[in-house]
Amino acid sequence: MSKDRLIYLPLGGAGEVGMNAYLFGFGPKGRERLILVELGVTFSDMGSSPGVDLIMPDLRWLEERRDRLEAIIITHAHEDHVGGLGLMWDRLRVPVYARDFTARIARLKMQDAGQDPEKVITVGKAPEALELGPFRVQFFPVAHSLPEASGLIIDTPAGRVVHSGDFKSDLTPGVGEPHDPELLAEIGRSGVKVLLCDSTNVMNPAPGRSEATLVEPITELMRSAKGLVVATTFASNVARLKTLADAAQQAGRSVCVMGRAMLRMIQVSTEAGILRDFPSTVSPEAARDIPRENLLLIVTGSQGERRAASAQLARGSFMGMQMKEGDTFLFSSMTIPGNEREVGRVVNGLSQMGVDVLDNAGRLYHVSGHANRPDLVEMHDLISPGIVIPMHGEHRMLREHAKLALSRGLRAVVVPNGSVCDLTDDAPVLVDEVETGRVYLDGSRLIGAMDGVVRDRIRMAIGGHVFVTLILDEENEALGAPWAEIAGLRAEGRSGEALNEIIEAELEEFVARAGHKVLADDDRLNDGMRRVVRQVVMEEIGKKPEVTIVVSRLVGD
Amino acid sequence: MSKDRLIYLPLGGAGEVGMNAYLFGFGPKGRERLILVELGVTFSDMGSSPGVDLIMPDLRWLEERRDRLEAIIITHAHEDHVGGLGLMWDRLRVPVYARDFTARIARLKMQDAGQDPEKVITVGKAPEALELGPFRVQFFPVAHSLPEASGLIIDTPAGRVVHSGDFKSDLTPGVGEPHDPELLAEIGRSGVKVLLCDSTNVMNPAPGRSEATLVEPITELMRSAKGLVVATTFASNVARLKTLADAAQQAGRSVCVMGRAMLRMIQVSTEAGILRDFPSTVSPEAARDIPRENLLLIVTGSQGERRAASAQLARGSFMGMQMKEGDTFLFSSMTIPGNEREVGRVVNGLSQMGVDVLDNAGRLYHVSGHANRPDLVEMHDLISPGIVIPMHGEHRMLREHAKLALSRGLRAVVVPNGSVCDLTDDAPVLVDEVETGRVYLDGSRLIGAMDGVVRDRIRMAIGGHVFVTLILDEENEALGAPWAEIAGLRAEGRSGEALNEIIEAELEEFVARAGHKVLADDDRLNDGMRRVVRQVVMEEIGKKPEVTIVVSRLVGD
Repeated sequence: MSKDRLIYLPLGGAGEVGMNAYLFGFGPKGRERLILVELGVTFSDMGSSPGVDLIMPDLRWLEERRDRLEAIIITHAHEDHVGGLGLMWDRLRVPVYARDFTARIARLKMQDAGQDPEKVITVGKAPEALELGPFRVQFFPVAHSLPEASGLIIDTPAGRVVHSGDFKSDLTPGVGEPHDPELLAEIGRSGVKVLLCDSTNVMNPAPGRSEATLVEPITELMRSAKGLVVATTFASNVARLKTLADAAQQAGRSVCVMGRAMLRMIQVSTEAGILRDFPSTVSPEAARDIPRENLLLIVTGSQGERRAASAQLARGSFMGMQMKEGDTFLFSSMTIPGNEREVGRVVNGLSQMGVDVLDNAGRLYHVSGHANRPDLVEMHDLISPGIVIPMHGEHRMLREHAKLALSRGLRAVVVPNGSVCDLTDDAPVLVDEVETGRVYLDGSRLIGAMDGVVRDRIRMAIGGHVFVTLILDEENEALGAPWAEIAGLRAEGRSGEALNEIIEAELEEFVARAGHKVLADDDRLNDGMRRVVRQVVMEEIGKKPEVTIVVSRLVGD
Repeated sequence: MSKDRLIYLPLGGAGEVGMNAYLFGFGPKGRERLILVELGVTFSDMGSSPGVDLIMPDLRWLEERRDRLEAIIITHAHEDHVGGLGLMWDRLRVPVYARDFTARIARLKMQDAGQDPEKVITVGKAPEALELGPFRVQFFPVAHSLPEASGLIIDTPAGRVVHSGDFKSDLTPGVGEPHDPELLAEIGRSGVKVLLCDSTNVMNPAPGRSEATLVEPITELMRSAKGLVVATTFASNVARLKTLADAAQQAGRSVCVMGRAMLRMIQVSTEAGILRDFPSTVSPEAARDIPRENLLLIVTGSQGERRAASAQLARGSFMGMQMKEGDTFLFSSMTIPGNEREVGRVVNGLSQMGVDVLDNAGRLYHVSGHANRPDLVEMHDLISPGIVIPMHGEHRMLREHAKLALSRGLRAVVVPNGSVCDLTDDAPVLVDEVETGRVYLDGSRLIGAMDGVVRDRIRMAIGGHVFVTLILDEENEALGAPWAEIAGLRAEGRSGEALNEIIEAELEEFVARAGHKVLADDDRLNDGMRRVVRQVVMEEIGKKPEVTIVVSRLVGD
């Protein structure tokens, strides 16, 4: 008879900001019953995942054990927590639990992906509790930047686990429930074995600021701006949408929200009865007839995304609206590290039009939704757990967070994606490693990050692509000369001659010299021709291209 | 008889940080004699220029007028000022002037590119003067982060122009001449018509800090670190190399410099007699035998470049050296906006090894080489020019810099790349636009940024590449079925069938149905097949690939 154990296994989020997917298990080794907390996405970039639409955690380990999975639990409605649900649910096929607002968004995700929205079940906050196999789960409210953000109390026979969700210490968050130290202290007093805790802002030494601090500066900006004001923020930052819209109203500006994701968030919040006092908005068509100085546009594209409204405005126009000298553009947002070039392109485009661009450099127009270092300390103190496990962050953040806890006399351990941590006893032990990774939504289909598909695209992006066709007859005699086409490479070699012609000439010579053994053997022929192509391209233009060789063997009718 | 005029025309650097190339002209309209100040490079990124090795300004306008060009002048030896010289000199073929250290680096650039290093002529600082047609040019020392950084006094019949070069207000810069307010004031008192002024740090409201402030924290770090210390900075930041090496020596650590560009900078500085007291260094082989706690490695890769030493260390090892728990890695550098992801990858890799990574977050380990906002104000005041023209920066920085000057009662104008500014009279006037752009070093050859080569690579990176071959005989009858190969795309369509086979089946049907007119017409046949491929790929996997069609027409022997 094997002893029951409590395990924790992050499949995503413990190695990046985004793509959260945390697994908890309880039971005999290898037969633990499981619950999955979050099923989020992260975003691609041209350097490592060009052309990829969304990135999700690889759930293969869990898929193979889905008979042991009790449920999926979502703490709040941000993309990095719920964005993968629709696309990946089919692989897990268990009930999904969330509070009302989150559940509404989760159902839309299921619908978008052609899954049954009824699989998503609404749960109230504590003391309402879910019984999921050996787990008893309660939602408790935390302050974040949208309605009904939650942490979880997960009771197990081995003790109580608290999962912080994404949170900040904001007593006046505008939208959603305020930070509630008394509630957290009460949970802490109940005896907490393990605290899983948000790590994204651990590097920031300043105490977090409240959404409420933005109201005055943003209202003042809307009042003093001479022309049109355009503001951008994350579509899912419902609190900010409200702060911006309220400020516009105060300043006598009509509000036009441009962007499907933003409108959806506002609509769902309103339907859920959470956002009763959002100022009424005007359509883009109506906005065109309103004097610029009486208008605020709220647009998508805070990260400079090429196809979003902000980038389109910077290039000329979006839905009939143009910006010009004397207008103001506000980034009520932070730039995700790595997006600086894209954001810079938008700012420079607007600058060329004479638009005044404001961002959060002066710390007036944006606050983060996550707990900074001192706020994390407060959380540790309130919950006073036996063990702190940092989650949601890059490795350096998890490590820094663990060091912070250790420096204050707490037990802490870094558990990166794929590590199985045994939490049964007082001291956490890393007992196993499972294979994890990433799955890409690429167009309409999913591919594995390591399938080689995107690697080939990166290689073509760096080296270009040479494509060679050779036709052989039944006697392995070449019918005509090899044919070479180039893509993404300079058309002329260093001699000024056409690169494909130089390649063709060298290949023709190679084929003429190749013995029958080589010509009869696809692998040897391909390898030989590939080598010739690489060598020619390196000599002529100094590049190492991707090379595809197609040998067509004509067979008699 | 047309009146002589003084013109300014930036070909690079007035729209980006990097790629500096500023043209001045004096003479009758259309016949002005010209001098080019700087011929720099900027760096590529995966988003907009994947696979590109270096980016330089497009000099076509100047090449067509090179008979009017008197000289190229280089203010200092950083890549963004001299890096394009070797590769582009052949297009201009005029003498190059620089101070001793800069000239030595410039000669190496010429040599590397197979050009005659003797075209680079050493000039002393003011009062030594160059007479270049209507221009009289003197170099004056400014503080930066390497030896002999200079500004220029350019006297013309229309008045005196001062070109700030890259500068900061550092009285103790470690290497190179200190900031000299008295000298600048003296130049200012001589009557300056126009100040061309560095803009890269105009957004930074704090006064710049001195290189000397780093000595204590870096030495303390080297002393208190338990294991190996590895530090990275820009290869060309000679001042920082010295600060790091001196600190190591103070802390009883041997110094090993890894990286050709760094070693070259140190060697040239030493040869030029400028860096007499650089601590002696050990070779990588010798370093392996030195106890870790007595060693500092200075390595390249401060921007997370994949192939540089820092990234290799983060992946495992570099030249036989490995990092491990208890070691320290120092980024004595700033991350260029847009490189955060690459740098993050290095930091997380090191974090996973248990290495303590320090960067400039606490403002202890790096200072910029450029003037911040208050330092720019000081420069304006000292030079007190009739006109301020911001240079070296993105458009938003140039605009902000111009606003700063205007707000203090100075005349200022933004002159972006390609704009011709007439400076003859008191008020500057934008009189013309010329075509400018970028030239890429791609492998060993140059290509134009707008040639479509890199655009095709980006398209393949995003959409993948489908390659189709069709063989027709003399009667335009298909010999065998069309053949499709895919690269960078998922191998199976939504049905689970092989994507290339689905494409082939659809193409076969298309060819079978196509009339003789279509089969006989390459353009129509290609267009039709391309359309079929795009449609199939969109339906099957939701991607829009690049498509290359090759129709081989067999002709009788």
